[in-house]
Amino acid sequence: MKQVDILLMARWVLPIAPQNIVLEDHAVAILDGRIIDVLPQSKATAQYEAAKLVELKEHVVMPGLINAHAHTPMNLFRGLADDLELMDWLNNHIWPAEKALINEKSVEVGSRLAIAEMLRGGVTCFNDNYFFPDVTARVAIEEGIRASLGCVVMSVPTEWASDEAGYFAKARQTLENQSGNPLINWTVCPHAPYTVSDDSLKKVKALSDEFNIPIHMHMHETQFEIDSGIEQYGKRPFQRVYDLGLYSPRFMHVHVTQLTDQEIQIIADTGSHVVHCPESNLKLASGFAPIAKIVDKGINVAIGTDGAASNNDLDMFGELRLASLLAKAVSGNPTTLSATKVLEMATINGAKALGIDHEVGSLEKGKAADIIAIDLSSYLTQPVYNPISHLAYCVNRLQVSDVWIAGKHLLVQGRFAHLDTQRLREQAHYWAEKAQPFSSSASKMKSNEETSMAQTN
Amino acid sequence: MKQVDILLMARWVLPIAPQNIVLEDHAVAILDGRIIDVLPQSKATAQYEAAKLVELKEHVVMPGLINAHAHTPMNLFRGLADDLELMDWLNNHIWPAEKALINEKSVEVGSRLAIAEMLRGGVTCFNDNYFFPDVTARVAIEEGIRASLGCVVMSVPTEWASDEAGYFAKARQTLENQSGNPLINWTVCPHAPYTVSDDSLKKVKALSDEFNIPIHMHMHETQFEIDSGIEQYGKRPFQRVYDLGLYSPRFMHVHVTQLTDQEIQIIADTGSHVVHCPESNLKLASGFAPIAKIVDKGINVAIGTDGAASNNDLDMFGELRLASLLAKAVSGNPTTLSATKVLEMATINGAKALGIDHEVGSLEKGKAADIIAIDLSSYLTQPVYNPISHLAYCVNRLQVSDVWIAGKHLLVQGRFAHLDTQRLREQAHYWAEKAQPFSSSASKMKSNEETSMAQTN
Repeated sequence: MKQVDILLMARWVLPIAPQNIVLEDHAVAILDGRIIDVLPQSKATAQYEAAKLVELKEHVVMPGLINAHAHTPMNLFRGLADDLELMDWLNNHIWPAEKALINEKSVEVGSRLAIAEMLRGGVTCFNDNYFFPDVTARVAIEEGIRASLGCVVMSVPTEWASDEAGYFAKARQTLENQSGNPLINWTVCPHAPYTVSDDSLKKVKALSDEFNIPIHMHMHETQFEIDSGIEQYGKRPFQRVYDLGLYSPRFMHVHVTQLTDQEIQIIADTGSHVVHCPESNLKLASGFAPIAKIVDKGINVAIGTDGAASNNDLDMFGELRLASLLAKAVSGNPTTLSATKVLEMATINGAKALGIDHEVGSLEKGKAADIIAIDLSSYLTQPVYNPISHLAYCVNRLQVSDVWIAGKHLLVQGRFAHLDTQRLREQAHYWAEKAQPFSSSASKMKSNEETSMAQTN
Repeated sequence: MKQVDILLMARWVLPIAPQNIVLEDHAVAILDGRIIDVLPQSKATAQYEAAKLVELKEHVVMPGLINAHAHTPMNLFRGLADDLELMDWLNNHIWPAEKALINEKSVEVGSRLAIAEMLRGGVTCFNDNYFFPDVTARVAIEEGIRASLGCVVMSVPTEWASDEAGYFAKARQTLENQSGNPLINWTVCPHAPYTVSDDSLKKVKALSDEFNIPIHMHMHETQFEIDSGIEQYGKRPFQRVYDLGLYSPRFMHVHVTQLTDQEIQIIADTGSHVVHCPESNLKLASGFAPIAKIVDKGINVAIGTDGAASNNDLDMFGELRLASLLAKAVSGNPTTLSATKVLEMATINGAKALGIDHEVGSLEKGKAADIIAIDLSSYLTQPVYNPISHLAYCVNRLQVSDVWIAGKHLLVQGRFAHLDTQRLREQAHYWAEKAQPFSSSASKMKSNEETSMAQTN
C-alpha cells in the first residue's frame, strides 16, 4: 500500500488527456500537490492508503478550467455601464472610472473579487491583462489560485505608467522581481495594435525572448480597429504585427472577430494561439470570430471571459457553452465544437496557449493537482445520459462543489476554506461608491427617484 | 390600517409596467392572491397591516418570468443527444425515444421535472407545446404554476393521436373538458408548416376562433423548412400560412430565424407575436432571428427556452441574457435590446403573446401576484450600480430566492415549500433508463468502458 495525501473517488472522471473520455467509478490519487495516478476505484483502494479520502458519488472530476483572457480588477466595474457604443462606453465611463479609481488598493480588491468568483465557478488558472499585475500576483498567491500575469505595454497614460517607456520600465522591474512562486507565470501584454507603436512592438518581442514568456495581445477585436489601422499604417493590424515578427507559439491572439482565410493560415503557420471571448464579442457587438474555421486549421483555441465590465461575469461554464452554441450557428453546422471539444478548449488548450500544459490542463500523472468536482445530483441536471453533455450544455457553475489547486482544497462542498466573502463585499462596496458617478445609470436612478416620488405623493 | 395577506419589503422593486423603472425601498402589498399596491416602504407600513411581512433587504422584486415556448416533458431527454445534424438528431434519437417512451406517466414526470426547474429559476408561467397537455395541465395545477397548454395538431402519428383528424378530436375533447382552473389557459398548436396540411390549418383557425384561444406555431425555424416548403407548395411557408388567414393578435410565430423585410411587415400589420428562442436556434444551427429589426417594427417579441433536449436547460435568465447579447452582435449595434428591454420581453411581452397581460407580466394593482425575488447580496453580483444590469447580464438563476404565484409562496429562500425533488430524481431515473438506448453517447460510453479497462489492466 502506497501512502497518498488525497484519494478522490468519483462517479465520473474526465481526464481530458491523454484521452478525452469518461472514466466511470474512477479515482484520482494526489501526493505532494501532484496527480500520481488515475485508476478504477477498486484498484485504488487496493493500491493506495489515503490521508484523506473524498467520496464524490454523483460528481464529475475534471481538470480546473483555465480562463485565458481576463482583466480581473475590472470586477469592480461590473455593470457600471451597459448597452452603449464602444467609444461612448470607454470614453465616458470605463476610462474615466479607471483614471479616478485604479491604484494598488482598488486593484487588490477587484482582483480578489474576481478570484473568488472564478474559484467558485471552477476556474483554477487565469490569464490576466491589467495594471498593477504585481498586486494581482500577490492576491493570487494569497488565495492559492494559479495565474499568468501580464506586463501591460501601451501608449495611453495611466496610474501604472505614463508612456511606453514607462510601461517597459515597469515591465522589466516586475519581471526581474518575480517571487518565483510556482503558481505564478508572466506574460508581456501589448494592449492592442492601435495603442502600441511599431517600435514598442519590436521591444515587446525582445522582452518576450529575453524572459522566455508569452505575448498576450488583443487582436482584431472590432472592424473599427482594422479600418483605423489601415488608415494609419496602410495595412491591416494583423499584417502589421506579423510583419514586425511577433507571431510564434508564444503569441496569443485575443478576440480575432475579423480574420481573412490568409490570416487564419498565418496563425496556423506560426503556431500561435487564439483566445476566444464570445460573450464580450456579442455584448460589445464586436462581431463573430470564425472559430470553426480556425479550429479546422488545427489552431489551438482557448476560451476567456474578458473583464466583468463587458461580460458581466467570469463564468467559464457559461462561456464554453456559448462558444459551442455560437460556433454551430456561425458555421451553420450543429456538429461543430462538440461538448468534448469545448471542454478541451477550456482546459488543456488554455494551458497550451499559456505554455504551461506540462503542468496543468488535464488529469495526467505528474501534473499539478488543479482539479474540480461538479455535482450532477440536482434535479437541474437530471437525468444524466452523458456527463460531458451536461458539463458543456447545462451545468450551473454553482454546481461546482470542490476545487483543488496544486492539491490544496480551496472550495469544500461549495464553501470557501478560507476566503472571506463578507469582507470582500464590504471592500467592493467602498470602491463602488467612488465609481458610482461614472455609472451609466447614475442619472437614470436619480430621475427614477424623482419619478417614484411623483408617483407616490 | 388596511389588512393584507403579504407585504414584500424590497430593496428594489422592478414593476416592468406601467413604468419600467427601479423603485428603491418599495413594498408590494398582496391580498387574495392579487397585487393591491406598490408603494414606498414608509407609506406601506403606515397604510397596511400584513399577516405576513417578508423582508428582502438586498433583493429585487419583479414579475415572474414567462417562458413563451417550451416542451416541458422533454426534460426527460435532456442531454440525450447533442452535436448532431437536425435530421439525424430527430430521426435517430428524439423521435424513436418519443415513440418508445411518451405516455401519460412519462409526460407527468417530465412535466414535473421541468416545472421544478422553471420555478427554481423564477419562471412563473410557461407556454407549452407537447402531447398529453391534459396531463401537464394537471401537474401544473398540482405544483401551482401558471401555464398555457397547447393542443397539438400535426400529421405525424404519436401515442397521443394517429392522424390530423385524431389530433383535432383530442383537441376538442381537451378544450371541452377544461377544469376552469384560473392558472390554466389553452392554445392550439399546429406543429409547423411542414407537418400540417392546408385543410388542417384552416380548421386550426376555426378552432382558435371557436374557443377564443391563441395559435402557437413553429415558423421558419430553419432554411431547410423554407426550401422544402417552396418545393411542396410553391411558396414560402410563412406566406402559405398567411394566405390561409391564420395571422392575427392571437398568433405566435416561434423561432423565425429567417424572415424577409416584407414578412416582418406582415407580422407587424397583423399584430401577431414573435417568440424568440436564441439558445435552441444556436445549438441546432438554425440561424439568427433578426430580432432587432423585428423589435424596431413595433412587433411584440417574447422569449422561450424551447425544450430541454435542444437547449439544454429551461433557464430564462440565461435565455434573456443571450437574447440581448445576440441581438447586439447580429445587428452590429451594442445599444440594441438593452437590459430594460429584454426584461420586458421575458415578462410583459410573454403575457401579451399569450393574451393574459391583463392578469400577469407586471407588478400592477389588480394583477395576479406572480412575483419573484432575486438576491443580489452574493459577491457574484457585487457591486450593484444598477440592478437592471445585473438581472440582464449577470444574475445566476439560483439567486432567485422566492417565488409567489397567485400569491402562493412556492419557493421560500431557495427551497421548495412542497415539491419533492428527491422523488422527482428517482422518477426521472426510471424513465432515463428506458431512454438510454436512444442516447447518442450510449455506444460511446460502452467503448469508453472497454478503453478504460484496457488502460488499467
